Amino acid sequence: MEMSSKLLERAVAEISQLPGIGKRTALRLALHLLKQPKEQTEHLTEAILKMRDDIQFCRECHNISDVEVCEICSNHSRDKSIVCVVEDIRDVMAIENTGLFKGIYHVLGGKISPIDGIGPSQLNIPTLVEKVKNGTAKELIFALSSTMEGDTTNFYIYKQIKDCDVVLSAIARGISIGDELEFADEVTLGRSIIHRVPFENSLKNH
Amino acid sequence: MEMSSKLLERAVAEISQLPGIGKRTALRLALHLLKQPKEQTEHLTEAILKMRDDIQFCRECHNISDVEVCEICSNHSRDKSIVCVVEDIRDVMAIENTGLFKGIYHVLGGKISPIDGIGPSQLNIPTLVEKVKNGTAKELIFALSSTMEGDTTNFYIYKQIKDCDVVLSAIARGISIGDELEFADEVTLGRSIIHRVPFENSLKNH
Repeated sequence: MEMSSKLLERAVAEISQLPGIGKRTALRLALHLLKQPKEQTEHLTEAILKMRDDIQFCRECHNISDVEVCEICSNHSRDKSIVCVVEDIRDVMAIENTGLFKGIYHVLGGKISPIDGIGPSQLNIPTLVEKVKNGTAKELIFALSSTMEGDTTNFYIYKQIKDCDVVLSAIARGISIGDELEFADEVTLGRSIIHRVPFENSLKNH
Repeated sequence: MEMSSKLLERAVAEISQLPGIGKRTALRLALHLLKQPKEQTEHLTEAILKMRDDIQFCRECHNISDVEVCEICSNHSRDKSIVCVVEDIRDVMAIENTGLFKGIYHVLGGKISPIDGIGPSQLNIPTLVEKVKNGTAKELIFALSSTMEGDTTNFYIYKQIKDCDVVLSAIARGISIGDELEFADEVTLGRSIIHRVPFENSLKNH
């Protein structure tokens, strides 16, 4: 896309490097900023730069945090022996929104994915294994998405701790509450029949 | 959306002020930047800030430009008596891509839209009227989108120059080349019959 201004062209090129944003959307965003007061652009760029420069990760669970130990890890009413293994902060926010989990989290920062060039060394796996080996964590709940990458990551961690004294579980997969059976995919439906639960249990937390 | 970091929360709030970007997309973009090297964020924010600070508008046509008079206006082979009236730089780029227009442009910078709080005073209309009154422009081609706002803007300009010695035209509306008649909307199809062109003319520029 050739433009009458190199400044605009460069800004569009940089914006369109963000995931899910093409050249056209980038141009729309740039023109929007040009129409707004200069302060909006300054606030936007300052907030992004400050976030990138000053962000910290919790020493315990590796979640994004403004302090050395995050609110969840420093909360004494949470059970530190139950650790939920998740990919990133979005999963933490989703589970926290349910209000049903009283343990703590361990944020891996991604999933093993050779295609994207992400190996185990880039993830926060050693500290998790350490928590299991020194006995702090008594139960791990795997809550990664059930994709090839998620399963690989779960299995990689499992191999390193399978001889330890730790309970391993994975979040239940099945038909969403409110969903119609006829529209469910076969794999999910099949698993939800094999992993059926006693009827009395299914009445809980409704 | 409550987050474990105020820095992240502020960045997400600023990003989600951009048009078409909600909180979830903003969070995805922020997490993406956190995973990339710090340089990418620096390049991105610097390019945006520099664009906002240093961008210029062509003195003649008000298009975005890095110099005082843009390439199109300073090109001696272009016919300065034919002026195409457009909304913004995207329209200029679209028409330039056809390679069929040899006149110059006049970028209004928007359309009259009371709902969005845009009145005639915010648009580059006086300089256009001046071009007509002093005889520089001998033909105006209205190329705004055919919405209520576009029509209002065209009519507002028309009222101010209707007594001047100037040819006024509007781009042709009709069925797109390659489109099926059965899927065309009635208004476009109706107009394309009323404004039919001699068959010999329809063979041109194929």
